[in-house]
Amino acid sequence: MTDNERNQDPPAENADLVISGGRVLTLNDRNEIFDPGTVAVGSGRILAVGPSEALSARFTARRVMDAAGCVVLPGLVNAHTHAAMTLFRGLADDLPLLEWLQRHIFPAEAQLTEEWVYRGTLLACAEMILSGTTTFCDMYLFEHKVAEAAKAAGMRALVGEVLYDFPSPHYGPIENGLKFTEALVQEWKGDPLISVAVEPHALYTCSPELLRRCHDLACRLDTRLIVHLSESEAEVAQIRERYGHRPVEHLERLGVLSERLIADHCVALSPSDIEMLAFHRVNVVHNPESNMKLASGIAPVPALLAAGVNVALGTDGCASNNNLDLFGEMNTCATLHKLAALDPAVLPAQVVLRMATRNGAAALGLGHTVGQITAGYFADIIVVDFQRPHLTPVYDPISHLIYAAKGSDVRHVIIHGRVVLEDGRLLTLDVEEVMAHVRSIAKKIAS
Amino acid sequence: MTDNERNQDPPAENADLVISGGRVLTLNDRNEIFDPGTVAVGSGRILAVGPSEALSARFTARRVMDAAGCVVLPGLVNAHTHAAMTLFRGLADDLPLLEWLQRHIFPAEAQLTEEWVYRGTLLACAEMILSGTTTFCDMYLFEHKVAEAAKAAGMRALVGEVLYDFPSPHYGPIENGLKFTEALVQEWKGDPLISVAVEPHALYTCSPELLRRCHDLACRLDTRLIVHLSESEAEVAQIRERYGHRPVEHLERLGVLSERLIADHCVALSPSDIEMLAFHRVNVVHNPESNMKLASGIAPVPALLAAGVNVALGTDGCASNNNLDLFGEMNTCATLHKLAALDPAVLPAQVVLRMATRNGAAALGLGHTVGQITAGYFADIIVVDFQRPHLTPVYDPISHLIYAAKGSDVRHVIIHGRVVLEDGRLLTLDVEEVMAHVRSIAKKIAS
Ligand SMILES: [Zn+2]
Ligand SMILES: [Zn+2]
Repeated sequence: MTDNERNQDPPAENADLVISGGRVLTLNDRNEIFDPGTVAVGSGRILAVGPSEALSARFTARRVMDAAGCVVLPGLVNAHTHAAMTLFRGLADDLPLLEWLQRHIFPAEAQLTEEWVYRGTLLACAEMILSGTTTFCDMYLFEHKVAEAAKAAGMRALVGEVLYDFPSPHYGPIENGLKFTEALVQEWKGDPLISVAVEPHALYTCSPELLRRCHDLACRLDTRLIVHLSESEAEVAQIRERYGHRPVEHLERLGVLSERLIADHCVALSPSDIEMLAFHRVNVVHNPESNMKLASGIAPVPALLAAGVNVALGTDGCASNNNLDLFGEMNTCATLHKLAALDPAVLPAQVVLRMATRNGAAALGLGHTVGQITAGYFADIIVVDFQRPHLTPVYDPISHLIYAAKGSDVRHVIIHGRVVLEDGRLLTLDVEEVMAHVRSIAKKIAS
Repeated sequence: MTDNERNQDPPAENADLVISGGRVLTLNDRNEIFDPGTVAVGSGRILAVGPSEALSARFTARRVMDAAGCVVLPGLVNAHTHAAMTLFRGLADDLPLLEWLQRHIFPAEAQLTEEWVYRGTLLACAEMILSGTTTFCDMYLFEHKVAEAAKAAGMRALVGEVLYDFPSPHYGPIENGLKFTEALVQEWKGDPLISVAVEPHALYTCSPELLRRCHDLACRLDTRLIVHLSESEAEVAQIRERYGHRPVEHLERLGVLSERLIADHCVALSPSDIEMLAFHRVNVVHNPESNMKLASGIAPVPALLAAGVNVALGTDGCASNNNLDLFGEMNTCATLHKLAALDPAVLPAQVVLRMATRNGAAALGLGHTVGQITAGYFADIIVVDFQRPHLTPVYDPISHLIYAAKGSDVRHVIIHGRVVLEDGRLLTLDVEEVMAHVRSIAKKIAS
């Protein structure tokens, strides 16, 4: 096409942003890759994606982002976090589990305030955006402040107040917790970035009645239900002793297994547990680094995937990881299961990348708007700089994303059409101020 | 002390470089930490280290490096690499081992030239320096070019030509390989950065006679002897079938086990293997990420350490990792063994940091000059920027180095007193040119 012919085309469509010149991994159903590819963004959504040649003349963009030498892909989804636990990053490591929890984490958490949760979550958002995460799914105390912090950072989040039988430092008795959750759901209804789930902590901290009530509430409000499930063999033994069944069966008997359930960890599973999770279309979140660091065990991810279970990826909280970098988590996921199966062909890079994008979106109930670069989807996009020594040469960009890239290779991040990270610089938060606040909180925690 | 009194002190000593204001982890025998601490460097060596207050007046420095907000520690030692395999980074992943080797790696290696090895190694050096490694130990073909590349990059390296029974694409018949090795040892004798080892590839590629000859040569030349050993159960089965003994016992019977031996991998070990390695003071290099990605198994590192074996850390080649970042490797090492032992107290951060520094130096025969910040040692020092969101707050800097830091947090690198990385910028190599060369080689490999 000559410039002359191009000039006779119909007037170009308007776009807020056009990202062009990079290698675009759509992660759509056909796994299309455009190189060089162009993504056009408007009103928070993807207007079009395709070869640069075909799209370059179609849009008049308010802003053009050059992605030459970069890989453009959907933003990563961290499907299990306790974001504000950045406050406790590295506070206590290398300790037996009970000593870690009872002598360090619980006493530190007893001091928590709304303000601390807000500041800790802002820091988590900074870290997540800087390493390419655009959506996270959170469970913690004072969760309204997590929602506020995510909103301030411009991140997409599914949040929910942690619920359990004993009184909470935040809401007091559980009745208040359920009311608080319902109010939080109403408060954020219709928000483009934030949504709210019902989040009973775990089977060993929630009575059967509470679990059932949480499930009923989630059904009534049409939200996700989120719980820690079968994190270790010790939990299986404890639940079996208390209720006579393994954790998954316990939930099935309570009628709580469904496709609205997000089950975190699922490390200790029997074959029949896997069948039940698959039958009820439960979403599982795998947290390999936390499971390794806390010595919980290896979740049977290949078996879950083979059974048709949707398995997403999460970092868990910073006290047990100790970072929120999904690039590292993808690497660990891909290699851990090769080792566990003694088969280097297990969990290929492509599968792991889907776990951290599409599967995460589907788990959070966002599968029709998040997790791929497809026209009509929300514009949650990251641009990763591949012109770096440790990413040279490039034979296969997906292999590099899983086996060689680091969170620090992320150059630009767009969430809901808004550029939140540009050339490694965070536009939505004052990082120095965020760090300074957390440092002063940490001084109080340490003393 | 007033300024007046200071003026009456004896004239200050001269230093080439003074690094001050940071938190200095000496990793010396008493594990001293100075915060803020100062390190003075002159003629390639550490002149003094201590509290900034005590040292600030003692030296007149040609150059002062401000390390406020940073952690200063010994440079990392990558004790097992095939550096030039950066050329094949991501060429073939997620494949069964034999298919990977025979259909992808061997055909690619058959095309190797001196020039390719030189260019691939320069890229490896760039990646290693950028991620805080100051010393590496290499085995490959055309190893004289590895030595030249390391020297050009300003890195410390122990190198050696890979030796085996069949003809080499480099030197042809094995006789030439042994002669080449001896000449290479002589060529680099007395070099402050480069030294040379005798490096038979493995027990399944080297006859008993060749292994014995290599050992004798190493003894005569007083060099390290380096071999891949017991990388998987498959290797154990193969060696046992061929020679009637497990690999470690096979070497013992050949009289090849000694403290000059560096044994890479040591994944598949029996209790008596561990005893033999400890008895003969063999140095073991652990490569957890390669072992995971290739599904080789888990080396019994806690048992080796408990038996008194010196265990260092390596990345192995880029084709099986796919990066040379020791920060990621330290993280994997610390968490993998917690999982393997189902005990979160196994391999605490401090132990893993020593594996990647002092133990590596000791394995390479450099334990009296490298691996700690102590007066008289070579000045191999890295400065890690801790003023970053994912390293905030700081309760314990050593925990952060293992569980939260990335190679990209390294800000300055000094090797043998020379600043080779400054504010993230490589001073010894033109990174763009290095990458461009490798990209053009990769085009030939891919076609
Ligand atoms: Zn959790
Ligand atoms: Zn190797």
